[in-house]
Amino acid sequence: MSDQKPAGSLKVVGLGPGPDAWLTPEAASAVAEATDLVGYIPYVARCPEKPGQIRHASDNRVELDRARQAIDLARAGRHVAVVSGGDPGVFAMAAAVIEAIDADPVPIDYGFSVLPGISAMQAAAARLGAPLGGDFCAISLSDNLKPWAVIEKRLRAASEGDFVMAFYNPASKARPDGIHDAFRLLRRLKAATTPVAFARAVGRTDEHLTLTTLGEADPGLADMSTLVVIGSSLTRFVDKGGQRLMLTPRSVEMAG
Amino acid sequence: MSDQKPAGSLKVVGLGPGPDAWLTPEAASAVAEATDLVGYIPYVARCPEKPGQIRHASDNRVELDRARQAIDLARAGRHVAVVSGGDPGVFAMAAAVIEAIDADPVPIDYGFSVLPGISAMQAAAARLGAPLGGDFCAISLSDNLKPWAVIEKRLRAASEGDFVMAFYNPASKARPDGIHDAFRLLRRLKAATTPVAFARAVGRTDEHLTLTTLGEADPGLADMSTLVVIGSSLTRFVDKGGQRLMLTPRSVEMAG
Repeated sequence: MSDQKPAGSLKVVGLGPGPDAWLTPEAASAVAEATDLVGYIPYVARCPEKPGQIRHASDNRVELDRARQAIDLARAGRHVAVVSGGDPGVFAMAAAVIEAIDADPVPIDYGFSVLPGISAMQAAAARLGAPLGGDFCAISLSDNLKPWAVIEKRLRAASEGDFVMAFYNPASKARPDGIHDAFRLLRRLKAATTPVAFARAVGRTDEHLTLTTLGEADPGLADMSTLVVIGSSLTRFVDKGGQRLMLTPRSVEMAG
Repeated sequence: MSDQKPAGSLKVVGLGPGPDAWLTPEAASAVAEATDLVGYIPYVARCPEKPGQIRHASDNRVELDRARQAIDLARAGRHVAVVSGGDPGVFAMAAAVIEAIDADPVPIDYGFSVLPGISAMQAAAARLGAPLGGDFCAISLSDNLKPWAVIEKRLRAASEGDFVMAFYNPASKARPDGIHDAFRLLRRLKAATTPVAFARAVGRTDEHLTLTTLGEADPGLADMSTLVVIGSSLTRFVDKGGQRLMLTPRSVEMAG
């Protein structure tokens, strides 16, 4: 609050899945106006170079260090954009930055905001048709930050509630078998005919969609660029004119 | 496929929560280039007037009629944008259009695509901090299209799985008491200290956020413009420098 202190800012910015066509004007402006970009190397690389703007690119798995660096820069009066893929609020940088804010002994003395973006789940759903047309859940299969038992509990609960499921981080390096374990469990809990999709690199040149069923799916198709969708009991494929769409209808029939 | 038939198109377009800053360039282009806009009155009203472009605005709850009209127009060679608030794949028009495609005896003989948008849940989360930082689910509390028993089953499952919950349509006209019933149930299943937020009209001039707890919340705050967020057991409020943020941390502690 002293006159000497310049008013810095910290924006956590969602860049979306990749294409500029999915980048919101708000996010584009935040990137263009920032004095400093902070983020994981490929996300910083996605931002156009701008004279005078400083790029602080770092490797993955250093989210808290990155968040602390962003806070220090904002506190020093810089205008910082922490750039994140997808939506920063969905398995991305917003939580890490607020964890760092929480641990910071000094109060927030800079402008702080989170700018939403299109998340991988939405891009995948758009390409597939309308798989998220009913109630759904999003689960990160990475067990870097939570025990596998919690993931298993959530897969059971999501099956019990007949939610459509979207899996992020289906093949973490720490547990490449996670997706196989998840499918083994789901095959005990759900019908083999349940529609399943693997949506890889949606919006990028190597985009690839695989539409299959729980019984026939090869979980090995999922890598870290893949969003996996598991249907509810109502999800079905619609085949019309050579195009296959994945649909979870809006209506749940009343039990007879 | 005949030479006489003009190639029409049908795009289901997500306009986001309202502000142009959250409208993707892809969606803006689709609206600008359409010969026909089809949608619920307030969403069509949000699109800039354009000479020669035909606006087919309809009331709510006629989603399937609207979808069939869009298909007929596309089949006749028009370039149709079905405009939807938020993300069309999340409790919006994508499923209705694909249901109509499914029921259509004629195959898809026009270009069909779904264009994602920022959903209300993401706009609310951005304003609140990072409430969706862990695994989460999205549930429509409207029982127009599903029995209340299904909603109740999902609330139980989401509590069992300790998901963060985002509620869409928390106060449908058909069941204004739904949100009260939901809170009564959740108060039996979850701690009274669970952080809860009511995010009303996010991005609009009458935006209003209420951050409270499950025990103290007034469910009557939720109207049809409100997105309700119910925390997981790990969600907490972060109070720093006069700003209150809602955080679901990324880590789940390993059970000791």
